[in-house]
Amino acid sequence: METQGSIGDWTTCSADPHYRAAVLDLLGALAYGELSAFERLADDAKLAPGLADKAALARMAAAEFQHYQLLHDRLAEIGADPTEAMTPFVEPLESFHRVTAPSDWLEGLVKAYVGDSIATDFYREVAVRLDDDTRDLVLRVMGDTGHAEFAVDKVRQAITENPRVGGRLALWGRRLMGEALGQAQRVVAERDALSNLLVGGARVAGFDLVEVGKMFNRITEAHTKRMSALGLAS
Amino acid sequence: METQGSIGDWTTCSADPHYRAAVLDLLGALAYGELSAFERLADDAKLAPGLADKAALARMAAAEFQHYQLLHDRLAEIGADPTEAMTPFVEPLESFHRVTAPSDWLEGLVKAYVGDSIATDFYREVAVRLDDDTRDLVLRVMGDTGHAEFAVDKVRQAITENPRVGGRLALWGRRLMGEALGQAQRVVAERDALSNLLVGGARVAGFDLVEVGKMFNRITEAHTKRMSALGLAS
Repeated sequence: METQGSIGDWTTCSADPHYRAAVLDLLGALAYGELSAFERLADDAKLAPGLADKAALARMAAAEFQHYQLLHDRLAEIGADPTEAMTPFVEPLESFHRVTAPSDWLEGLVKAYVGDSIATDFYREVAVRLDDDTRDLVLRVMGDTGHAEFAVDKVRQAITENPRVGGRLALWGRRLMGEALGQAQRVVAERDALSNLLVGGARVAGFDLVEVGKMFNRITEAHTKRMSALGLAS
Repeated sequence: METQGSIGDWTTCSADPHYRAAVLDLLGALAYGELSAFERLADDAKLAPGLADKAALARMAAAEFQHYQLLHDRLAEIGADPTEAMTPFVEPLESFHRVTAPSDWLEGLVKAYVGDSIATDFYREVAVRLDDDTRDLVLRVMGDTGHAEFAVDKVRQAITENPRVGGRLALWGRRLMGEALGQAQRVVAERDALSNLLVGGARVAGFDLVEVGKMFNRITEAHTKRMSALGLAS
């Protein structure tokens, strides 16, 4: 992750139509990501072994929805149609969820943890390349929903109680990361403006596949470290 | 619905163990009702015909969760175990949901509307019999989540586009009310303290089946009127 100074505020930056298109894509992707996270967490709540766990998942789902609302309102504020901005990202995310439906409570927790963490890494990568106003919003919705800590506690406990669970969940974590990368690469291939923003900021015009690859590598490395810390060899 | 003055605050009223038990039951039932409403709305969001409708349902689900949180926190505040307080109401509510799973988006909307409305009627019946502190909380979580208006608009529009939809949904509304009454009567039969509170307030000791029946009749009448207003003969 490189550090760089402010590139200006939204009013200045959005005068460039490429920049504007990239931010609409980014906010649309994040907004649908939050709405989708809401749905998955609400679904996982059903698998909860007890009422307290169910309520904990529902609480996180409600927090994701609040993030969605902020992104939605921002899209409307800058004159975009939120539904239109989200639409290109519906199919990639739904495809991901279709092929990675958790078969039990623990798989659901690992998936939510992995998903949240990848999203946070991704936000961090992109935040430094954004205008001040968009960056403030992205950092705000990146705020922890308490999910990570909850999932880590429950998964560690389950592995302690039954070490064989670890092997199964390690495999699951690997599969999740593979599918996530596959879908992300699909999005990158289809959304030029967004991809340019990801790798070079507003000032880079050419599409740099090598830079995109490096970003994915950084995210994969962070994932690997997290899985190890969780007691899951990835 | 009768009007009556204040019966005092929580500290005064809860000195009576029967009153305290009844309020724990009431808050437990409401809390699980909200958590359950959250889950159903999140489920219905999946049936939404578009992203805007999906987000509208998710927004309502998140609002129900906030209500759940208030009830949960109040239970903890008065020294009760929220999980324990909710437990007796899990099975009746889940039974209701099992036998009334909506088969499409419109059935989901009608169910949520009917459920919300019955719950509101019920809150209103019981609010007048509560101590000031509990009443304030009940009136607060009774606040409209915007659900009713949304459902009414969508259902009316669907009936206008295809009048035959009305017949099917009228039948569905009748079935929902029948199942809801059945489960409510089961709860009343099993929870003496709660039932006494419902029909006579803290000061009535005997269980009065006639009064319970009258309350159910008032709620059924209100339901019938609402269905007619919606263009659904019930």
